Amino acid sequence: MAILNKDMTLCISLSERPSNNGTRFHNHLYEQLELNWIYKAFRPTDLRDAIAGVRGLGIRGCAVSMPHKESVIELVDHLTESAAAIASVNTIVNDDGVLTAYNTDFLAVAQLVQDLDTALPVAVRGSGGMAKATVAALKSVGFANVTVVARNAERGNALADQYGFAYSAEVPAGSGLLINVTPVGMAGGDGEGQLSFTHEQIVAASVVFDVVAMPAETPLIEAGRAAGKRVITGAEVQTIQALEQFVLYTGIRPSEDQVAAAQDFMRAEA
Amino acid sequence: MAILNKDMTLCISLSERPSNNGTRFHNHLYEQLELNWIYKAFRPTDLRDAIAGVRGLGIRGCAVSMPHKESVIELVDHLTESAAAIASVNTIVNDDGVLTAYNTDFLAVAQLVQDLDTALPVAVRGSGGMAKATVAALKSVGFANVTVVARNAERGNALADQYGFAYSAEVPAGSGLLINVTPVGMAGGDGEGQLSFTHEQIVAASVVFDVVAMPAETPLIEAGRAAGKRVITGAEVQTIQALEQFVLYTGIRPSEDQVAAAQDFMRAEA
Repeated sequence: MAILNKDMTLCISLSERPSNNGTRFHNHLYEQLELNWIYKAFRPTDLRDAIAGVRGLGIRGCAVSMPHKESVIELVDHLTESAAAIASVNTIVNDDGVLTAYNTDFLAVAQLVQDLDTALPVAVRGSGGMAKATVAALKSVGFANVTVVARNAERGNALADQYGFAYSAEVPAGSGLLINVTPVGMAGGDGEGQLSFTHEQIVAASVVFDVVAMPAETPLIEAGRAAGKRVITGAEVQTIQALEQFVLYTGIRPSEDQVAAAQDFMRAEA
Repeated sequence: MAILNKDMTLCISLSERPSNNGTRFHNHLYEQLELNWIYKAFRPTDLRDAIAGVRGLGIRGCAVSMPHKESVIELVDHLTESAAAIASVNTIVNDDGVLTAYNTDFLAVAQLVQDLDTALPVAVRGSGGMAKATVAALKSVGFANVTVVARNAERGNALADQYGFAYSAEVPAGSGLLINVTPVGMAGGDGEGQLSFTHEQIVAASVVFDVVAMPAETPLIEAGRAAGKRVITGAEVQTIQALEQFVLYTGIRPSEDQVAAAQDFMRAEA
């Protein structure tokens, strides 16, 4: 760690329950790249005042987490497509007081599915904020046959309708890309250790994607690997969304090795 | 330096021309005392937004430098005596969103003169913001025979009148405590290498006090030492004002050795 000094560029995050992920990931990259930058998570006492502070203190970048992703929209100057597509902001870039908003969750999902066959029938399980980012990203990449699967029929239908997709209470037969965007399988949650799709559904699919990042090897990912399927992990989403924030803030794209080292450092404590 | 983490308490400074002094002094003490705190200087783009950010981000402490010391008054919740006495703020403490303002320059000068004989006739050379802090501190400690010496008669008279003291264009004969609060003798300034009082005045005095902090051994301090006088240096003012900020922010008073180490670290780069 370089000696702290007055000229360091600050990036922050705003979250009701901050994790150390961003602080560790970004600072580790700053150190590897010898940037005179610093990153720290905050739990804002008032969102409007916090965003005023981003402007007034010249804070370069600001990650936004729950529950501020929607309420922050009216406080920024520009919404880019990734944020506008889902009316949800997780990244703000400050250019001399002009705040531009992005959603790098959307960008990460789009990046991870962009080389898949868009003719694959997709089943997305979930109807929350991250499900919205996922469905919108699928739409933007060109997937046409997408079914939103959710226990909450009202929210599931609303999400499907918004993007011209189908809703179903059950996973349709023949789904080729299975995506879990529920907390099922998440460490420490009610669904820890549980599988978000059945073994039959996994065997019938060609790609299995779990947005749950912790553990990296969720039951779904383990089952997908065991069945010889291509897998996409929540850890990849987590890293890519943080990486794209880093690139938006600094204008620098680190090497794969540098990103891997920062990811390992981030996840070592998580 | 500890690994940066989400739980670090942030303190900042707001200045039009930030120096590294505060950043180095405070961070060095945090490290010595193993506090999970961090300090960084900022050049605010908008003072009101920056102070909103202090509240909204839960920033614990905020040093205020030129030209914000007066305009910040309307943005805080409480002025303590040190700030109210001179209508000038250099320190803000944030207690759960309630901002209380202090002036530790005033506190530092008061501390440095408090064991002197208050019957000494004092000559204060200067009429700027720091001269105001100095004159007010002399008043608060109980000095009664104080003359403000300034080239600008209007400002000198106004400052003297405000505290019930005298104004003079020249240093009165018999001045026992000489205080320089002009830039004369400051490294890099127009008056570098120059003496702010005459040799005759120095020889006739018993205490010589220079508020100029850089170099620590100004021509006035060197001349005072050479004449066998008690000297008080600007470096002492600088350290005590920063130390009192540290105590206000953290509630911890470091040992003399710890303060000396932080002071050395601060001045090593300045």
